[in-house]
Amino acid sequence: MSTSAELDRLRVVLVATRNPLNLGAAARAMSNFGVMHLRVVNPFEPSFREARSAVGPAADVLANAAQYDSVADAVSDCALVVGTTAIRQRGLQHSVHRLDSAAVQIRHALAKSHVALVFGSEKTGLSNDDLSHCHWLLHIPARDEHLSMNLGQAVAVTLYELSRESKTLPVAKDDPPAAAAELERITALLVEALETSGYATAATLAATEEKARRMVRRMDLSGRDADVLLGMLRQVLWKLRVAGRDTRS
Amino acid sequence: MSTSAELDRLRVVLVATRNPLNLGAAARAMSNFGVMHLRVVNPFEPSFREARSAVGPAADVLANAAQYDSVADAVSDCALVVGTTAIRQRGLQHSVHRLDSAAVQIRHALAKSHVALVFGSEKTGLSNDDLSHCHWLLHIPARDEHLSMNLGQAVAVTLYELSRESKTLPVAKDDPPAAAAELERITALLVEALETSGYATAATLAATEEKARRMVRRMDLSGRDADVLLGMLRQVLWKLRVAGRDTRS
Repeated sequence: MSTSAELDRLRVVLVATRNPLNLGAAARAMSNFGVMHLRVVNPFEPSFREARSAVGPAADVLANAAQYDSVADAVSDCALVVGTTAIRQRGLQHSVHRLDSAAVQIRHALAKSHVALVFGSEKTGLSNDDLSHCHWLLHIPARDEHLSMNLGQAVAVTLYELSRESKTLPVAKDDPPAAAAELERITALLVEALETSGYATAATLAATEEKARRMVRRMDLSGRDADVLLGMLRQVLWKLRVAGRDTRS
Repeated sequence: MSTSAELDRLRVVLVATRNPLNLGAAARAMSNFGVMHLRVVNPFEPSFREARSAVGPAADVLANAAQYDSVADAVSDCALVVGTTAIRQRGLQHSVHRLDSAAVQIRHALAKSHVALVFGSEKTGLSNDDLSHCHWLLHIPARDEHLSMNLGQAVAVTLYELSRESKTLPVAKDDPPAAAAELERITALLVEALETSGYATAATLAATEEKARRMVRRMDLSGRDADVLLGMLRQVLWKLRVAGRDTRS
């Protein structure tokens, strides 16, 4: 297994989970593999209550689970956000990596920062909005005729692969990557800039925001670069607002 | 994923499974990873009926599941029988291999013969008698504080590891190994020989049989050697019986 220090930086994020058995199963798999930080986003409330009241070896994971209202909040301290999908290719918006190579990249990131692993609801998976918070996606190789896995089993297989012993990767000595909260600030400023500039209208704003969020994630920004970009955007936005006022005056 | 020809030689054997959800979850994981041959030994009958009546992508696996009264029958056509355990070391009776190295050996065996992967009941795992039919055991690496995995998740993780792509192993050109049915015939003749010879008494017979069965599995016999051994045992037994009659007369 990987060092517990690394796995301690991993956050498992379950979005809109409905079935209390699946919440319990995911927590049990986490406990098996030593991944103790569960975050739930908008769970079906009675299910979350029921799962939390359960006794057993996974009770610790569930009792300490943190609840969030949005994926953005749930991943805000993570430098890498990886979504999970049963589909091999979701258009060109995201790159999709097979679990084994995804695990190598995730372990690499865990050596220096927090990583979120995001699982969608049993029925619909991750929404386009959920996906827009992800840097890239992973899929578990399965039979073409039956790609969709049970949630608890998908969590178990993913954490098994992540915790398996591997050749230690050299820790890159470049800048640590930007945290998701920084990327989200950049996205917000960018969208505001796009809106203020008239690029996005009220009708296209939601689509533009999603597009911007994905693009910012693909940039793979370091924390230092994110700071620089934020400064630039703030300045641009200030100027846009001033110009807007000037035009209106 | 491994070639489907190889996975088609794999038999998943569930012993005394009680919970229909676990039967369904195991079947679903099998279907995900392209392992279609399920064998159940003494399942809790209402659970098996309920699981078989379920619809969904794993229905094929459950509908075609074969039911057996004993582990011996369920593994009789398999040249390698691997038990699963949450425990790292079960005394010195069996060697226990970690899943990743176990998978290499199992894929190697699947290249030329059938392999059974045996999972015990949720509550008690595999009994000593069940274990006596196994050549060796595998365990999934997990946290010391929480070794015991959910049945469906254990099946999913094991089949994921078995179906992962791997460097192709050279197929050994030595004799194909003996099937479990041949090993069981050898065991039966040996036990009869031990009983007839007075080695085993009525009080020790069950223990002797278990001991003999394990020992025969550890021999790693080829089919050809098994034939030779059977011939030898038949002859020995015939002589023992004759001697017994002579002594009594």
